[in-house]
Amino acid sequence: MSASRYAYLGGFDGTSNVMAAYAYGIPCRGTHAHAFVQSFAETGPPVDATAAAHSERSALASLAYHYRENVVEPALRQPFQVSAMAANESELRAFIAYAAAFPRAFLALVDTYDSLGSGIPNFLSVALALEHQGYKPLGIRIDSGDLAYISTQARRMFDVVNPGNKYIIFASSEIHEDTLYALKEQGHAIDAFGVGTHLVTCQKQPALGCVFKLVQVGHVACIKVSEDPSKTTIPGRKRVYRLYGRDPTVCMIDLMMLETEPEPHPGERILCCHPYEEHKRCYMTPSRVEEILQPLCVFGEVLAMDDAQVSASDHERLRVARKRCLEQVRALRYDYKRPLNPTPYKVSVSAALFKLVHQLWLEELAIRELS
Amino acid sequence: MSASRYAYLGGFDGTSNVMAAYAYGIPCRGTHAHAFVQSFAETGPPVDATAAAHSERSALASLAYHYRENVVEPALRQPFQVSAMAANESELRAFIAYAAAFPRAFLALVDTYDSLGSGIPNFLSVALALEHQGYKPLGIRIDSGDLAYISTQARRMFDVVNPGNKYIIFASSEIHEDTLYALKEQGHAIDAFGVGTHLVTCQKQPALGCVFKLVQVGHVACIKVSEDPSKTTIPGRKRVYRLYGRDPTVCMIDLMMLETEPEPHPGERILCCHPYEEHKRCYMTPSRVEEILQPLCVFGEVLAMDDAQVSASDHERLRVARKRCLEQVRALRYDYKRPLNPTPYKVSVSAALFKLVHQLWLEELAIRELS
Repeated sequence: MSASRYAYLGGFDGTSNVMAAYAYGIPCRGTHAHAFVQSFAETGPPVDATAAAHSERSALASLAYHYRENVVEPALRQPFQVSAMAANESELRAFIAYAAAFPRAFLALVDTYDSLGSGIPNFLSVALALEHQGYKPLGIRIDSGDLAYISTQARRMFDVVNPGNKYIIFASSEIHEDTLYALKEQGHAIDAFGVGTHLVTCQKQPALGCVFKLVQVGHVACIKVSEDPSKTTIPGRKRVYRLYGRDPTVCMIDLMMLETEPEPHPGERILCCHPYEEHKRCYMTPSRVEEILQPLCVFGEVLAMDDAQVSASDHERLRVARKRCLEQVRALRYDYKRPLNPTPYKVSVSAALFKLVHQLWLEELAIRELS
Repeated sequence: MSASRYAYLGGFDGTSNVMAAYAYGIPCRGTHAHAFVQSFAETGPPVDATAAAHSERSALASLAYHYRENVVEPALRQPFQVSAMAANESELRAFIAYAAAFPRAFLALVDTYDSLGSGIPNFLSVALALEHQGYKPLGIRIDSGDLAYISTQARRMFDVVNPGNKYIIFASSEIHEDTLYALKEQGHAIDAFGVGTHLVTCQKQPALGCVFKLVQVGHVACIKVSEDPSKTTIPGRKRVYRLYGRDPTVCMIDLMMLETEPEPHPGERILCCHPYEEHKRCYMTPSRVEEILQPLCVFGEVLAMDDAQVSASDHERLRVARKRCLEQVRALRYDYKRPLNPTPYKVSVSAALFKLVHQLWLEELAIRELS
């Protein structure tokens, strides 16, 4: 909140923090999440609340499919070797749903699958459809990859498909001062930057970077694959347990299990697997088991604190939190806490969850053709 | 506020932020300021609000002078070559006043003049007097110098003067993680640490370090001399002006003047001096003069904002602040703002103020005897 306030005071033009926008009167800027695009992958677009919105979206969808086939596809194929018809179909459906809901604020996040090969052609198809309906689409947001190259290519694609357009190119992706200088030197076609982490936190101090990712839609688990295995999401609805060793005050390993699996019990031996490397696994017989995942919001409803917490004063709640914090730090072996070369704390998955991760991972990654 | 809250949650034992202590129920810990000690230098102790406190302090003062002469002086002279009778007298008066006001929380900041030569002997004199009256003095705080050496010497002095004492040694002074490891390695006698700047801010990000210093008591200007000239305070009640160059939107130099001097006017040539280096000075004929020192609190009363500010909404005030911030940044030449080797912005003093700084500086520093 205060970061939004002072960034605005210091010259930023808007905030994606909706509460800060409301409280301080700062212009609110933003787009949808990657998870929104992903959510269209398995299930198709969710049903609308109103029939009107539904029929409006149908009209927009027909137009978007029309423009994709008759304008975007022929315009991009030759100069860019990009086929709009081969772009990710569920991404197109996501953009249509988003544009129908926010026709005056259509800024599409294009890097969920492939910015140049899928996101931008899909954006252009929906943008032309929106313009046909009398709206002005805003543009695109790029959140990964080579921002200089993708933005200049995007600008060229915009100009080829729709000369005279005023689409903006908005870039985010852990941007900091040095990135800005480097981009300026390389040349780019970015109109606006979104700066978050590097504005609010400082690289020399530990910061907890939180993002939300989709792990399941309805009953179907889904995965977001990344080139960096540690960024690949662990799919499915899960429960998480902290397992304590022979000394019941010293925690040894955390274990994620599918929600449907039976929970681990003290004294019972259980297999703990590294989530990505199959040769790293161990048996563990915990002396104590603590469930550590606490749902805070279920089906849009914020879960109430327990009665003791509700009736406690602010001061009491702070004291309880402090006591728990100190106990948790004490439960860590010294080698996890030492400043030089600390031992990484182990986080593992059950055998069933390991199987699901690797099955979905292989399904998601098409096998490449070498020739 | 949030730093105090989360530091406490994470294991700190108290805060010196009185508001945070009140709001979150965190134990409040602290002592007086250097300026409190300094304020006794010229004028003697301020008159008390109540006669009772005054008479109590008189009793305490008599005891302190008694213990200084008969216990502390003989105990410290031989083993430490320290004379309690030669310690700074105004510091002793400050400690007496502080102990009379807070007899159950007497933690003396001992480094205003010289921790080992003055602060600690003075502390011990007042501590013995307090104990005589049935109180338990807390101990000392050291805020500068060689913390390892001073703390071990202090502990030895405590043990010589008052065996069985439980005085604590509290250290502050820009303490960070590395200082703690270094002190641990060297050996020290510190019981508690006060961490501020390095807890709340991060060295990689610019932080505005603010401290308050005494520049005048009544009608007498005073100076706090430091080995580092840039830390020496600029004495006296002042007014501060921003002088704009030929282009009235570009600021050239800030000028501090004594409150009693006539203010500078556009079109009039004025001499601007570097505050510490006499050969650095220049004439300046400003096209525009802006007074930039805005008193917020006068004689303990918080000054009201002007009517326009009072009636404005929060959102409007933020917009006004933002506009001003952007204008101020725009008024800086590019070379002040460039990321590599920025030009330092000049802050100067008038000739009269220069004279006062250097006169008080020479008066404050005794001429050393070499032999």
